[in-house]
Amino acid sequence: MRKTATPTGVLEIVAFDADDTLWHHDPLFAAAQDRFKRLLASYHDEAEIERRLYETEARNLEQFGYGVKGFTLSMIETAIELTEGRITGREVQEIIRSAREMLNAPIHLLDGVRETIASLSNVYRLMLITKGDLLEQEAKLTRSGLSDYFSVIEIVSHKEQKTYEAITQRHAIAPARFLMVGNSIKYDVLPVLAMGGRAVHIPYHTNWPHEAVSEEALRQHALTELEQISLLPAFLNTHFTPFVQGAPSFEP
Amino acid sequence: MRKTATPTGVLEIVAFDADDTLWHHDPLFAAAQDRFKRLLASYHDEAEIERRLYETEARNLEQFGYGVKGFTLSMIETAIELTEGRITGREVQEIIRSAREMLNAPIHLLDGVRETIASLSNVYRLMLITKGDLLEQEAKLTRSGLSDYFSVIEIVSHKEQKTYEAITQRHAIAPARFLMVGNSIKYDVLPVLAMGGRAVHIPYHTNWPHEAVSEEALRQHALTELEQISLLPAFLNTHFTPFVQGAPSFEP
Repeated sequence: MRKTATPTGVLEIVAFDADDTLWHHDPLFAAAQDRFKRLLASYHDEAEIERRLYETEARNLEQFGYGVKGFTLSMIETAIELTEGRITGREVQEIIRSAREMLNAPIHLLDGVRETIASLSNVYRLMLITKGDLLEQEAKLTRSGLSDYFSVIEIVSHKEQKTYEAITQRHAIAPARFLMVGNSIKYDVLPVLAMGGRAVHIPYHTNWPHEAVSEEALRQHALTELEQISLLPAFLNTHFTPFVQGAPSFEP
Repeated sequence: MRKTATPTGVLEIVAFDADDTLWHHDPLFAAAQDRFKRLLASYHDEAEIERRLYETEARNLEQFGYGVKGFTLSMIETAIELTEGRITGREVQEIIRSAREMLNAPIHLLDGVRETIASLSNVYRLMLITKGDLLEQEAKLTRSGLSDYFSVIEIVSHKEQKTYEAITQRHAIAPARFLMVGNSIKYDVLPVLAMGGRAVHIPYHTNWPHEAVSEEALRQHALTELEQISLLPAFLNTHFTPFVQGAPSFEP
């Protein structure tokens, strides 16, 4: 644990990111990228393929968003550009097959997730806040077997300060009573702190370049960082008191 | 107006479908399909291309969902199958270009939409409930210029009875005080009536085969049908009393 900036306080909601916080996600994309590089190995070297794919993804992100379908279209576009149109129909079909494999992949929870979530759900109301494709995120949550622990599921297209403000306002939660847990400093931690909420960073072992945050931004905030999710209950226990209430007004 | 099954009552929320209810949508897909058929004209006749594309779409729907990205992947797959892999990289690129054109297409509101929505927003709280891709639906709503009239935006992956039940429960609205307006009997009308809500069908001039509803299902319900959205205020005026309240508890 790097440092603790959160004084003791009352906590009403513990919210979790999903991909690479509750279940492994990045490895799926990495494996698809590896298949893609092998597919194009006769046309270009790996580094060049990776660089061009990353460029295409970054260019398409605003329009295609996060998710397997947008990633697949970016792979196909990159393949056409890298081969100057010589890519064959069969090779494009391979890329789509690879997409289907990603969509059907079993969900592998990170160590300690099920126990931690189950135990915290006895104490706090839990929320899931995940960025990405609506259908894909819903399908993963269903397959994760964790749905029932969460009283609120929010699938969003962006994770900005205003996103978190809208969510807490919609559910009538004071930001100071809202704590977000996630692997991304940029999307799960900084915007929540900026709104006056609380956040815990649990790093995942790989990190997408897009998510890099400047050292300055890091210095400005005293980040709470845990090495793994199983340390969360003890941390919350030490620093917070759960908010207790009857059925909240917006749940029947 | 075919028939009116809704007795006078208090109405709290008027909810709208978006695609082909507020703005034209189907023509975009039809135009993309036409481009697709022209692209493959040297390989197959139009009817066969259309049949195979529809088959692929139906097969992929559960996994890819609604939206341009899923539709594009289905077009690419169909092109590969129909040409037995002989489709060229350049032709695939044409399909992706066509997808981008759909994503960038200007929003054309249906006649009377802006005036009707603006005027109803003075009387009722308005909700938008649209099925499809999160990012695409958000982008269209922004470009429509209608965002500010809606107090709640719900982008969902399915429109089933339980979807509407979850939404009305989340916002603490009695189903009988909820009225849905949309062009789809299957997705906007029947599931809402089944929950005990109210619904108005405003047909769009084209209809996707998936949305066909059996005659029997239609006979079971006395449907309220309006020819165009501009008739809605007078209809609501005749049959309902708006629910008046201070700021609802879930809005700050």
